[in-house]
Amino acid sequence: MRFRLALVLLLLPSVATADEGMWTLDNFPSAAVEQKYGVEIDDDWLRTVQLATTRIEGGCTGSFVSPEGLVLTNHHCVQRCVSQMSTSENDVEASGFLAREPEEEVRCQAEQISVLMETEDITAQVEAATAGKPEKEANEARKQVLTQLEQACEESSAESPGGKRSCEAVNLYHGGQFFLYKYKRYDDVRLVFVPEADVAAFGGDPDNFNFPRWCLDMAFLRAYEDGKPARTPHHLSWRGEGPEPGESVFVPGHPGGTSRLLTVAQLRFLRDVNLPHWLMRYVELRGRLIQHGKTSEEANRIVRAPLMRYENGIKVQRNRLQALLDDQLFAAKREQEEELRAAVAADPRMAKEYGSAWNEIAAAIDSYLSFRDDYLFLEGGIGFNSFLFDYARDLVRLADESQKANDQRLREYTEAALPGLKQRTLAARPIYPDLEKLKLSFSLDKMREFLGPDSAYVKEVLGSDSPDALAERLVSRTKLADPEVRAQLWEGGREAIEVSEDPMIELARQIDAEARRLRKRFEDEYEAIVDAATERIAKARFAIQGTGRYPDATFTLRVTYGAVEGWKEKGQEVYPFTHIDRLFERATGAEPFRVPESWMDKKAELDPKARFNLVATTDIIGGNSGSPMVDQEARLVGLVFDGNIHSIAGNYWFDPVMNRTVAVHPAVILEALRVVYGADHLLAELGVK
Amino acid sequence: MRFRLALVLLLLPSVATADEGMWTLDNFPSAAVEQKYGVEIDDDWLRTVQLATTRIEGGCTGSFVSPEGLVLTNHHCVQRCVSQMSTSENDVEASGFLAREPEEEVRCQAEQISVLMETEDITAQVEAATAGKPEKEANEARKQVLTQLEQACEESSAESPGGKRSCEAVNLYHGGQFFLYKYKRYDDVRLVFVPEADVAAFGGDPDNFNFPRWCLDMAFLRAYEDGKPARTPHHLSWRGEGPEPGESVFVPGHPGGTSRLLTVAQLRFLRDVNLPHWLMRYVELRGRLIQHGKTSEEANRIVRAPLMRYENGIKVQRNRLQALLDDQLFAAKREQEEELRAAVAADPRMAKEYGSAWNEIAAAIDSYLSFRDDYLFLEGGIGFNSFLFDYARDLVRLADESQKANDQRLREYTEAALPGLKQRTLAARPIYPDLEKLKLSFSLDKMREFLGPDSAYVKEVLGSDSPDALAERLVSRTKLADPEVRAQLWEGGREAIEVSEDPMIELARQIDAEARRLRKRFEDEYEAIVDAATERIAKARFAIQGTGRYPDATFTLRVTYGAVEGWKEKGQEVYPFTHIDRLFERATGAEPFRVPESWMDKKAELDPKARFNLVATTDIIGGNSGSPMVDQEARLVGLVFDGNIHSIAGNYWFDPVMNRTVAVHPAVILEALRVVYGADHLLAELGVK
Repeated sequence: MRFRLALVLLLLPSVATADEGMWTLDNFPSAAVEQKYGVEIDDDWLRTVQLATTRIEGGCTGSFVSPEGLVLTNHHCVQRCVSQMSTSENDVEASGFLAREPEEEVRCQAEQISVLMETEDITAQVEAATAGKPEKEANEARKQVLTQLEQACEESSAESPGGKRSCEAVNLYHGGQFFLYKYKRYDDVRLVFVPEADVAAFGGDPDNFNFPRWCLDMAFLRAYEDGKPARTPHHLSWRGEGPEPGESVFVPGHPGGTSRLLTVAQLRFLRDVNLPHWLMRYVELRGRLIQHGKTSEEANRIVRAPLMRYENGIKVQRNRLQALLDDQLFAAKREQEEELRAAVAADPRMAKEYGSAWNEIAAAIDSYLSFRDDYLFLEGGIGFNSFLFDYARDLVRLADESQKANDQRLREYTEAALPGLKQRTLAARPIYPDLEKLKLSFSLDKMREFLGPDSAYVKEVLGSDSPDALAERLVSRTKLADPEVRAQLWEGGREAIEVSEDPMIELARQIDAEARRLRKRFEDEYEAIVDAATERIAKARFAIQGTGRYPDATFTLRVTYGAVEGWKEKGQEVYPFTHIDRLFERATGAEPFRVPESWMDKKAELDPKARFNLVATTDIIGGNSGSPMVDQEARLVGLVFDGNIHSIAGNYWFDPVMNRTVAVHPAVILEALRVVYGADHLLAELGVK
Repeated sequence: MRFRLALVLLLLPSVATADEGMWTLDNFPSAAVEQKYGVEIDDDWLRTVQLATTRIEGGCTGSFVSPEGLVLTNHHCVQRCVSQMSTSENDVEASGFLAREPEEEVRCQAEQISVLMETEDITAQVEAATAGKPEKEANEARKQVLTQLEQACEESSAESPGGKRSCEAVNLYHGGQFFLYKYKRYDDVRLVFVPEADVAAFGGDPDNFNFPRWCLDMAFLRAYEDGKPARTPHHLSWRGEGPEPGESVFVPGHPGGTSRLLTVAQLRFLRDVNLPHWLMRYVELRGRLIQHGKTSEEANRIVRAPLMRYENGIKVQRNRLQALLDDQLFAAKREQEEELRAAVAADPRMAKEYGSAWNEIAAAIDSYLSFRDDYLFLEGGIGFNSFLFDYARDLVRLADESQKANDQRLREYTEAALPGLKQRTLAARPIYPDLEKLKLSFSLDKMREFLGPDSAYVKEVLGSDSPDALAERLVSRTKLADPEVRAQLWEGGREAIEVSEDPMIELARQIDAEARRLRKRFEDEYEAIVDAATERIAKARFAIQGTGRYPDATFTLRVTYGAVEGWKEKGQEVYPFTHIDRLFERATGAEPFRVPESWMDKKAELDPKARFNLVATTDIIGGNSGSPMVDQEARLVGLVFDGNIHSIAGNYWFDPVMNRTVAVHPAVILEALRVVYGADHLLAELGVK
């Protein structure tokens, strides 16, 4: 499974003939689709899909599947909500959950769901604000104008007949275009159904990113408005028998991010620094969590959700590193860059405007490397991996930022960002002290390892404490686990923060000036240079290759197309469907290959030949989790939850031969709801039978 | 600290002007030393140093420092012995140990010490045995002739007046030369002194491979013969005031291995596969051990020694990966290879004989990759990281191998190898069930992760068990923790093994055929090809560049030379000495920056200006741990225990500007023995004062 399942875009300057691309809706390649599949995708189809597709703000996608706000998404996309509902007495992750009537639906405190209603091109305004400025000033001016435009958009929408919108500035093609994306946002999201983790994530980490596969990685949420189920006339209908082999299918969704347009220097930085460091860090943390989970049943329950996230991330990053270590991929990237640079160099005007951009990025990376560790540990938060510290930092920063004009604030504290931040900060969520101590002690330990025991920062934070001792003191004495205390500090603002003696608030206050200084350095010496240079490369690309391409993913709405098709793995054909019978054959009874009792009880009644999971050639990536897979009539024919192992390299390029999307088949969803869970009321709401 | 501290050899075809090279004694560059330092190194000096330097079979070096068999080495080189002596009631690692009289000296059950007495060139015999054979047969013939020559050497020595020798075949220059190395071996080794771990490894993992440094990483062992202290007329005398800045110094020792002569394909394999996999594995295991160590004081004590080893290894491998990710280093390696290949290609005879060698190595690596995971988990042992399993495998294999003629056996079960194996197998050592379960469960978990749950090997081993359940069952039911049981199985031979119902023996038996098949495949499809091709490259190198170079390290005796000298770190001069006063200033009271009570008590009496650690430009690597640093008169002026962080890249090349050896200064050793430990009897034995 993956958070922000990653899909990607075309590298080669030729026309896309592969089923490749995460297309924005205003640039969907309908002609190419018609040519290849004989299927016509018109504006109505696109509009239906747009309004039925939801973004789940935690990092996933979903789709409306009833007129009453019912949202279909993945089990792993609601895991935060489920684990917040769970207690040692009532382990909802293990047992699953089904609301038999609306009153039983449980609010997911921290979740928000958004639907993209409209987009507006603001490239001209952004360029006007930054034109002629040196990088550092341009970077600041860009942030200001984006904040101003977002604010104006939200204010004007509040008075418009269409209703209030949440407005977000979006940067496409790495600075080539800027847009305002205008969302209808639902803050009241409730859990309707999840199956047991054992069947939702059958095969666990060993099977993650693999296929054949047997995961019922599904969940239903419901969007509420004014305390009532939201009215959602634009929703998808079901085609329970699913698609046929070779049939064309489409995946709308919010791919989180891709790196297909990075320069060679940036890829090298990922390969040599970023990915290895990330992996070392989280592989060790994984080991610590696993071992902690063995100390008691309760510890085992508590580490399950973070462990799933880290293990998923480790598999992704390890395979990304593997992709970048592929000398052929790297040589191809180098060649493409050289071609583009040669074309720029051949035109005197372009040479002058764009020619130096690549070297400027490389130099900015070198300069960043000299303070990267300090920056990441102090400001990037990896020195303080703790929910309690995150609360403290937000509260401390907000107290300062809210004193400033909106367009002078750090971007995460602007008026547009505050409602979401407030909801997340004040939401009740269980805080597990042992887990907090473990993660915080680990982070402090790594800070000392990487910055060295003689670092001024390390001495400032640790003093003569050991990481364990400091983590113990902070976590056991802070009161921030209490949502009431957080609410008081949120409301109390600067004065409340300044007099607080909460040790976590004190720590956040104590390091804030240094952390902000490092952030400023990062923004001025790295981000500003890279953004300005990247924008120039984007312009060079437009000038030379035209605009008939797709931008790197940005967790904004895209549609990708393809067909139901297996692939050849080490000479063996992989059939594109699995069936229920093999789930039972594969079960060992031991985690992660344990089939829940509810299924074992109904084994005889289940259709052994019902399709379970399927694969298609669509181009997805993390963030597409929960995406509907739809057919040419925009009917639901699958629920995307993963890619195969080859899809991970999709962060850097799309390989049409090997890269596959993995989805839950609608047949198994309906079969499970009917036979295993007896959820006839949901089937009725879906309009099935 | 480092096990097998790694030092390396010259890459460039020019004459060594840097203080570089791990020289065999028969090829020591005395002329270069005289030219650079005005110091004459003659045969007497070399002979003294040879006979005073000991190899510690666990992977270190030591030196005789008295006529009574007293051996000086590192604390971290006797850690296995110390942790075997420790119990929860008597934590010798924490408290240190000092025998006040011979009767108090404690035997290190598993340790052996060797002194190189003589070497014999057997290149001609090996070449005669393999000439004209295809790779696979040549590989088998080579192993046979080496076993035969070792056996003949040992048998003839037993009747010679010089006494019994242990004979080991040694391959230098990757097949360019073969030698028999003839050792006098001491099986009875006893612990005389170690300081507390807190001062021996002050700074722990954070300070490991760093300098300035304050570690009293020392220990005394004593070699015994016939139950009495060995007579060792060839020993080093002390020069307590140590060397001056800029003075030339020498380090004899047993560097464990270097990779300075690998081909680009081999380096790429290390960079892309070997090192990342190793790191992922041990970083996670590190996390598990750390977390387990927090469950109780006893668990903390038990994980300390393995944790120190893994953390040291992680630092080494991480920095090696960093070195290989340096595009300049890689480009230099590629260029050197291209030059050598061009020179070969330019000569028709050489082109025919050697020209294809590089591509053959690359092809062998590709072929290896297709079964590498299976091989490493099943045969390489990483699927069964457990002392109990190691015993089981050796006992099972020995039962088969001992039925065969000596030269038909796997090399680790030949007559020459058996005495060491027997001593290690039957030695009493504490086995900690929780630690065994942790490591075994971890290994099985990784086996399932890497081979996949559908692997036939995984199904064969795990069945429907979880890794935890299988590890629990195996470790709690096997009797192999009892040395008596191991002795019975050793003596009982094949019959005893065949009827054994010990579950660990059963597991080893169950997978043995498959494991051997994978080993054969490894030997035939990879090792044989690579060895044959590497031998041809070595010959090409000799033909083109001559023999005035040093071979890659092979855990055999070498001498390196250099001078006491700091370096420049980020523009700052690093002074080559530290002093006692800063140890106390740096102490925080919390591990790993805690100074033991014995030192705190005597703080006032210690000379604050006594030198503590020092650095020199000598070229060392893992295995040199415990090496004496000597002056031009072969007097002891330091005890090598580490290198600086830049020394780690020394596995691939020697950088004279940054690479430094780190040693304990003799002054702090004598000061500590006198003031802190009151060990006047040892000072007298050392002939000091």
